[in-house]
Formats: sequence, C-alpha cells, structure tokens
Amino acid sequence: MTLHRTNELNMKTSHPEGSFDLKAYLLENRARVNAALDEILGQNSISTKIIDIIRYCLISGGKRIRPVLCIAAAESVGSQAGDVMDAACALEMIHTYSLIHDDLPAMDDDDLRRGQPSCHIAFGESEAILAGDALLTLAFQVLSAPALSRDENAAGWLKVIHAVATSSGYQGMVEGQLRDIASEGMPLRLPELETIYRLKTGALIEASVYSGALLGGADPMQLAALVRYAKKIGLVFQIIDDILDVEGNPEITGKAVGSDKSRGKSTYPSILGLESSKAVAMKLANDALQSIESFDSKSDPLRAIARYMVHRKQ
Amino acid sequence: MTLHRTNELNMKTSHPEGSFDLKAYLLENRARVNAALDEILGQNSISTKIIDIIRYCLISGGKRIRPVLCIAAAESVGSQAGDVMDAACALEMIHTYSLIHDDLPAMDDDDLRRGQPSCHIAFGESEAILAGDALLTLAFQVLSAPALSRDENAAGWLKVIHAVATSSGYQGMVEGQLRDIASEGMPLRLPELETIYRLKTGALIEASVYSGALLGGADPMQLAALVRYAKKIGLVFQIIDDILDVEGNPEITGKAVGSDKSRGKSTYPSILGLESSKAVAMKLANDALQSIESFDSKSDPLRAIARYMVHRKQ
Repeated sequence: MTLHRTNELNMKTSHPEGSFDLKAYLLENRARVNAALDEILGQNSISTKIIDIIRYCLISGGKRIRPVLCIAAAESVGSQAGDVMDAACALEMIHTYSLIHDDLPAMDDDDLRRGQPSCHIAFGESEAILAGDALLTLAFQVLSAPALSRDENAAGWLKVIHAVATSSGYQGMVEGQLRDIASEGMPLRLPELETIYRLKTGALIEASVYSGALLGGADPMQLAALVRYAKKIGLVFQIIDDILDVEGNPEITGKAVGSDKSRGKSTYPSILGLESSKAVAMKLANDALQSIESFDSKSDPLRAIARYMVHRKQ
Repeated sequence: MTLHRTNELNMKTSHPEGSFDLKAYLLENRARVNAALDEILGQNSISTKIIDIIRYCLISGGKRIRPVLCIAAAESVGSQAGDVMDAACALEMIHTYSLIHDDLPAMDDDDLRRGQPSCHIAFGESEAILAGDALLTLAFQVLSAPALSRDENAAGWLKVIHAVATSSGYQGMVEGQLRDIASEGMPLRLPELETIYRLKTGALIEASVYSGALLGGADPMQLAALVRYAKKIGLVFQIIDDILDVEGNPEITGKAVGSDKSRGKSTYPSILGLESSKAVAMKLANDALQSIESFDSKSDPLRAIARYMVHRKQ
C-alpha cells in the first residue's frame, strides 16, 4: 500500500514542481541558517561561558525543519529568506532549548543528541538547564531586535513574538511535553495522542509557517491557507517519527529503533498499525498540498517539503 | 556606624516624602499585581495541568519588588499602574521562573521557597523544569499582547521585550546564575562579586524600572536618571540579602541564617565585613536618591523604596 500511495501523492497536486531540487534547497537554506545563528552567537559583547555551551548544542547538525519552513512560507508569498532570517533563527533556538531540557535526566534522560553527547552529559546538569533557559530567552531577544534596529513593522514582529510564545508555552510545547511524560506506560486513544502531538510539535511548526508568511507579507487568505498546510504537515512529521522508530534504519536516523515501545509510549503505529499510519500520513500530506493548490510555483519548496515529510528516512 | 548612617540617609534627599506610607503602597500594589497575575492565569482556553503548577509558584507570597518598581517608575513620570501592569506581571513571572529553576536539585537544591515546599518537591522535577519554562515563555506572551489588542505603542512594547530578554538571558540573569554556581567554594574579589550580582539580580531590576519608565512615557533624560537609580538599588538589594544571611531573623526573613557561609559563597560581608557592607549599601542608596533628585513628589514611592531597600528585615 505504501508504495502505491507514494506514487499517488505525486499525481495529486496540480502544480508538480518538476525539476525543483529539494536536496539543494535544504542544503542551501540550512547553510544560511547556520551562518546566521553563528553570527548571532558571535555578537555577545560580554565574556560569557553560556555561549560556548549554547554553540555546542545549536551548531551541531539538525534538520532545521522549522527555519526552512519559515523561509519557504515567506518565499511562497514573494518574500525572501533574508527578511525572515531572525525569525527562522529564533525558531531553531526554541526547538534546540526544548531538546536540551527534554534530554535531562529528570525528563527523557537521553545521553545522545544529534550524534554527540547531549548537553548535560557534555557540560553538567545545571549548565544544561541554564543553557536551555538562555536559548529560550535569546529567541525573544532576537525576535525583538529587527523592528527596533530597522524601525519598521513593529506590529508584525510583535505578532510573531506572540505566536511563537503561545505555541511554545503552556498552550503548546510545554503542555505537550508534560502530557507526553505523564502518559508513558498508559495506552492512549488516537484523539489524545493527536492532541499531544499538536501541542508538542505541531504548534511550533505552525508558528514557523505563520511567522514566515506574516513577515513575508501574506494577505489574510494566503495566511489562512498556509496555516492549514502547516497543521497538516506538523502531524505528518510526528507520525513519520513514530514509523521511523519502528522500521527506520538507525544508521540513517541516528536513533535506536524501538525506543517508543520500550518506554511504553503510545504511537500511531501502536494504535493504528504501520500500514494505516502510513496511509494517514499520506492523506494528511495530500491535504497539505491541497491547502496551497491555488499558490503559484513560488510554493514549490513547500510542496516538496510536504512530500519529503512523508518519505523521509531520518 | 549603621544607625548613624541610617539617620543621614533621611536627611540627604531634597524631597523628603513626608507622610508617604510605603507600607500601604506596597500592600496596595502587591494586591493589584496578584489580582492581575491571577486574571492572566485564568485566561487559558485549554485544559492544562501546567497552569495549576504555575499558580502554586506564582501566587504564593513574594515581595513583588520588580513589579512594584515597574509601577513606581511609571508613576514617577506621570503614568499609572494600569498602563504597565502587563509588564509588571511579566517581570514577576520571569523572577519566579528563575526561582523554580534555581531551587532544582541540580542547581541550589532548595526544598523550601516562599514558606512552602519548592516546586520540584511539590510536583516533581520534570514538572518544575517545565513550569519554569512555561512561566518564562508566558512572560513574553504577556508582553506581546497589549500593543496587539490595543493597537498602540508597538515599538515601546518591543523595546520592553528586548530589554527584559537581554536582562534575563546570557547577558544577564542566566550568566549570573552560572557564574554564581561555578564560584561556590572559591574566594572572589569584590569586582567579580559585583559583576555576578549585576548579572544575576541587577539586570532584571534595572529592566523593571526601565520598562515602567519607558511605557510610562519618560523622556530620554528621565529614562537615563531612572536607570541610574535602578543600577544603584539593584546592588543595594543584593548586599542587604548578604547581610540578612548573616544577621537576619529567620522568623522574619523566612530563610535560615548562614546558608551563604555553609555553601562557601563569597558575599559582601565575607569580603568587606558587616559594617563596611552596610556603609556601601547606604552610599549606594544615597546615590540612587540623588539620581532622581530633580524629580517631583510623584517619585516619592521610588525614594521610599530606596530607603526600604537598606532597612528591610526580610
């Protein structure tokens, strides 16, 4: 079923992106994001130990999905990466802070992250707590800087700050993580699992697309369509994570297989089975593509990302 | 010497606040801040476990120094508490998050806070990490809301967000806490200790006064004077903390005496001795009063707070 469905997916969009090279696009934008992050960390005017720890965690691989989505959303409405790079960097900072805190012994207790010792293993537990705190705070420092220095679009950047904070806090990521930890060993039903995924990863992915679109100058109709797209691919991303935990190649994913099962975590495959989970992911990716069907070829990166989300091996 | 200096202090300001009742002022403004915090926590539209934990930590006493300073700074330039209440609440949220994380076993490992079991004792360690994260995030959600809903002064609120983030992160509170932990058991010299205090508590106190003054409509001269005031009283606050750790009454302070010494922490008294520390605090409070000497009676609360800082018993 999965291969068949895979082929279906490519047929369903009315704007096949033809020769669009997603691999090159991802490489190029990851490099831009990494350069921008590096520049921000180099701007510190005081001698600070915490920046070294932050650099270790932030400049260490990672797919940069959130910044790339932010940039691709901006481009889809005619803007450019440079116009939203501060937002893209802030989103990656928030994602990285959440990984640092999630890896702590009191949380998921993970020793490895992005192929290297996780922050608390490399630097100590108090340092990891503080580095996460500093990264979260730095995200808002970065988001509040552009409009002040360029004296433009203060209301737009405030909206982005509000969306990012709302999606990361008690109405989003933090609540999702709390429910995720609380539900270990407890069998969940699908609506409960979907809610946890929407809070834990979906909300910030939605905020990434929203921020890029808003700062890129999307009109209200475009913004609504792009947010619909984001809601769908946010869930696809998490379902494929579940699937890779069952049948992924550890040499490609960089993660051990079966960790969800050994932790007693409910997942899409544990509730629906593998094949149905893949079918749901495919359906959602198609819905995402349909949300932006009326957009022109500037949305080809978003279309290619939706397909990549379903087929990704890592 | 201290009693003598205490009397001197009251004489040195050209605007003795006469019958100004600081106790009533503090009680009134604490009640207003508590009501505003409670209202914010009641606005959550989704069912969330983290809000209950946050409420336990946030609505549990505390001197509310930062919100009161924010309000008093706004009033000193002719504005009112209501105009800066969101900033006042956000400042208390950031202060409270820092206490929750500082109390964690990997950090200061404190079981008691504000007279009740600290967050991780009451709810668990992962819950305390997440509650701190949620409070820090909520502060920026709150700071980004007023200008959006009232459609006014977006640039002003962005400046406040930038100042609050800068003072709380790697250039402020987080770096201060990291250096504080790293220096336990190491004898510090006074300039090093002063830098730690400036980062760890001074920066956020300065941001509190700055935020109130800026949102209250201070002109650049007033703003500069109020920031000078804040720099001085921020250090006074910390020196008196050190002194109370030596000779405070545990029944009034709510803290054990001698904890700095038992942890091998350098303090003003351990470096300068008690009497010289008191003299330094007195000198700094006088400098604070002088910074706002040209301000009229609307600054009486700030003047009374500077005196209270030196004489406080808790």
